[in-house]
Amino acid sequence: MAGRVFASVSMSLDGFVAPGSPEDLMGRQWRELQAWVFPQRSFRERLQLGEGGEEGRDDEIVRETFERTGASVMGRRMFDAGEHAWPEEAPFRTPVFVLTHRPRDPWERPGGTTFHFVDGGIGPALDRAREAAGDRDVRIAGGGATILQYVNAGLVDEVAIALAPVLFGTGIRLFEGVDAGRVALEQVRAEPSPRVTHLTYAVRER
Amino acid sequence: MAGRVFASVSMSLDGFVAPGSPEDLMGRQWRELQAWVFPQRSFRERLQLGEGGEEGRDDEIVRETFERTGASVMGRRMFDAGEHAWPEEAPFRTPVFVLTHRPRDPWERPGGTTFHFVDGGIGPALDRAREAAGDRDVRIAGGGATILQYVNAGLVDEVAIALAPVLFGTGIRLFEGVDAGRVALEQVRAEPSPRVTHLTYAVRER
Repeated sequence: MAGRVFASVSMSLDGFVAPGSPEDLMGRQWRELQAWVFPQRSFRERLQLGEGGEEGRDDEIVRETFERTGASVMGRRMFDAGEHAWPEEAPFRTPVFVLTHRPRDPWERPGGTTFHFVDGGIGPALDRAREAAGDRDVRIAGGGATILQYVNAGLVDEVAIALAPVLFGTGIRLFEGVDAGRVALEQVRAEPSPRVTHLTYAVRER
Repeated sequence: MAGRVFASVSMSLDGFVAPGSPEDLMGRQWRELQAWVFPQRSFRERLQLGEGGEEGRDDEIVRETFERTGASVMGRRMFDAGEHAWPEEAPFRTPVFVLTHRPRDPWERPGGTTFHFVDGGIGPALDRAREAAGDRDVRIAGGGATILQYVNAGLVDEVAIALAPVLFGTGIRLFEGVDAGRVALEQVRAEPSPRVTHLTYAVRER
């Protein structure tokens, strides 16, 4: 059975997934947006942030997201930002297909992550990710603009959003430029946790 | 005991509460945004749309919102749009304070709604609404810009959002221009229904 294509992001109540400038990436708003995920045991383990951590429903959701993912696709800017920030054992533990126009040899990291650099657009990158994922799912990892490209192209089956009680006011909106005449959503699940609301939508073509 | 000040709106997943132009007010997106509320028994009764209707959790939420409201505040444009659209028995059944710079005598409608036109800014209008509401709550009815004015001024205790599985792409965003350095949210409740997710946030000053 072929896997599904999904995105999973933390979003502010006003629709932002990242600050407007990279310097603010470690700023207050971003930290508040991500505050729910850092204490989770599965996240700490995967990012090598240390032993222990919380083990409630938030943690299960993090773990399920890791486990269902057989391959990821990401934009070049997300890769560039992460390249120096991820631990040597990059947290993906699967093949990752990076959209780029600058060809480069695959980059294999300890722990199971191999970055492949795909010059050819979002379709071919997704095809390769699907093949690599087998019967597991493909995650469109980000950033926001890359996720939206896939959504607008009708290539995403499901969007999972951890809606955080934070207001950004400015920054990068997940759905800025969405093709609203074409993209329809169906509410699949909504699950509150103490820190965020976990929302899952199926993405359909109108 | 003094009541609380709250807003209660339907919002698209990308943060919009209304289309950009009044002509689109009855358009597809707006209908999809409000689709959850029209079938509800309490709403149909209050808007005189006919007998019957659904009676589940969505309906209870509509009814609770009506019942807690002892007075409303609304912007002039919302009043102008509603003046000819509401039934003769306007749906508020309480005093409504309309922000305006054009003084006008109070307008009493059958069924208990009286519109008062307040020239003096958002503070005085709220003071009058609080007084009229007694120990019930004051609803900042809208539109979006009026709600945000009150939120930015630190005058709103609670924002209730029916988050609809709809994408607008363009229109009027509830939080466009929010004073994100000042306004903090605390997640109070998140409750899925078959059609929307009901989110309640306490609004705090940072």
